[in-house]
Amino acid sequence: RSAMALAHKGLAWESRATLFTGIADIGGGNRTVPVLEDDGELLGDSWAIAEHLEARYPDRPSLFGGETGKSLARFVQNWTIAQMHAPIFRMIAADVHDALDPADQSYFRESREKRLGRRLEDVQAARDDELPAFRAGLAPLRFTLQAQAFLGGERPTYADYLPFGALHWARTTSPFRLLADDDPVLAWFERCLDLYDGLGRR
Amino acid sequence: RSAMALAHKGLAWESRATLFTGIADIGGGNRTVPVLEDDGELLGDSWAIAEHLEARYPDRPSLFGGETGKSLARFVQNWTIAQMHAPIFRMIAADVHDALDPADQSYFRESREKRLGRRLEDVQAARDDELPAFRAGLAPLRFTLQAQAFLGGERPTYADYLPFGALHWARTTSPFRLLADDDPVLAWFERCLDLYDGLGRR
Repeated sequence: RSAMALAHKGLAWESRATLFTGIADIGGGNRTVPVLEDDGELLGDSWAIAEHLEARYPDRPSLFGGETGKSLARFVQNWTIAQMHAPIFRMIAADVHDALDPADQSYFRESREKRLGRRLEDVQAARDDELPAFRAGLAPLRFTLQAQAFLGGERPTYADYLPFGALHWARTTSPFRLLADDDPVLAWFERCLDLYDGLGRR
Repeated sequence: RSAMALAHKGLAWESRATLFTGIADIGGGNRTVPVLEDDGELLGDSWAIAEHLEARYPDRPSLFGGETGKSLARFVQNWTIAQMHAPIFRMIAADVHDALDPADQSYFRESREKRLGRRLEDVQAARDDELPAFRAGLAPLRFTLQAQAFLGGERPTYADYLPFGALHWARTTSPFRLLADDDPVLAWFERCLDLYDGLGRR
C-alpha cells in the first residue's frame, strides 16, 4: 500500500528488500515494514507514511480526497485488518513461511505459531473450509464495486490500496486462489494491478 | 438516516408515520420507506434522498465531504447492511413484530418468515448465541471510533448515520441490549443520539 501511495503521488522511490531479522538495520527504531526514508526523515507504519505523503505533497493527486475521505479510509483499514488480513493469513500461513528467505523462517514460525497456538501447516490445512466465509465476508467490498469502479469512486484512492495490499500480499506468496473467477472483487483487483504501468504485477 | 441527513442540512421537515400497508398511499410508486417529498418531488430510497439533499442544498453542511467521502460512505452502507441490519434483524425479529401496529403484523410475519424460513420467535430465540459474533463483527467500527469521534472524523457525516440508523432502529423497537456498557461503539451511539438537540432521543 505504501508503494501504491508513492506511485499515486507520482513520486520516484527506491525499494530495499529486507529480512524480518534485518529491519532494525534499515528502519531506525521501527520494528515493522514498511519504513519510508524521505529527505532524511525515517517513517514507520503505513498509515503514518500515507499521512506524511499527503501533507508533504499536497499539490500532487490526493490520496484521501479530503478529511472525510481520510476518516473513512481509516474505517476501511480497520475493516481490511479484521476481514482480510486475519483470515488470509490463516489460509496461507505455511505458504508465507515457505516463500521466506531461509534465514527468516525459524523466527517467523516461532512467532506466528505462538500467536496462532498451532502449527502453520495445521492452520493452513483448514483453508478450503474457511474460504466460503472469507468470500462471504467480502460482501461490502463486492457490492460497492458493483456500483463504482474503485472504493474511492471513479478513480482509486488510498482506501483502495488497503484491501488491494492484502490481496497482493497473498498473490505474491501463495498459489491459493482466494477469489472466484466471476467475483467483481477480482475484476477490481485486476484493475488495481494495472495501475501505474502495472506496478502491482512487477 | 434520512431524518439525520435532513437535520445535518439544517432543513425543516414534517414526518408522517405510515403502516407498511399504507406506503403506496403516500409514496407514489415507492414500496419502501423512507420517502421524501421535497418541493413536490417524491424520492424513495435513503441513498437517493441523501444524494438529492447534497446536490440540492450544496451551501449547507456537506453530508458526504466530497466525492471520495461519498464513495466510501457507500462502502459503509454496504457494510452496515451485511454486518448490522441482517444480524440485528434476526436478534429482534419478534420484538419488531410486537412493536408494529396490529394492522401490519400479519403482513410482516408472513413476508419475513417466508424470507427467514422459520418463525420470528424461533429466529429471535437464538439471539444470546448470536450476540458475541455480532459484537465481534463491529471491530472495524470500534477500532475506528477509538481513533476519532465519528466515522466522518471530528464531526459526523452521512457515513455515521448509516450504522447509527441500524442501532437506532433496534433501540426503538426492542429492549435487547446489543452493545456492552464499555463498548466505544455505545459511546459513539450516545454522541449521535445527542446530535441536533437530541433528535434521536425524541
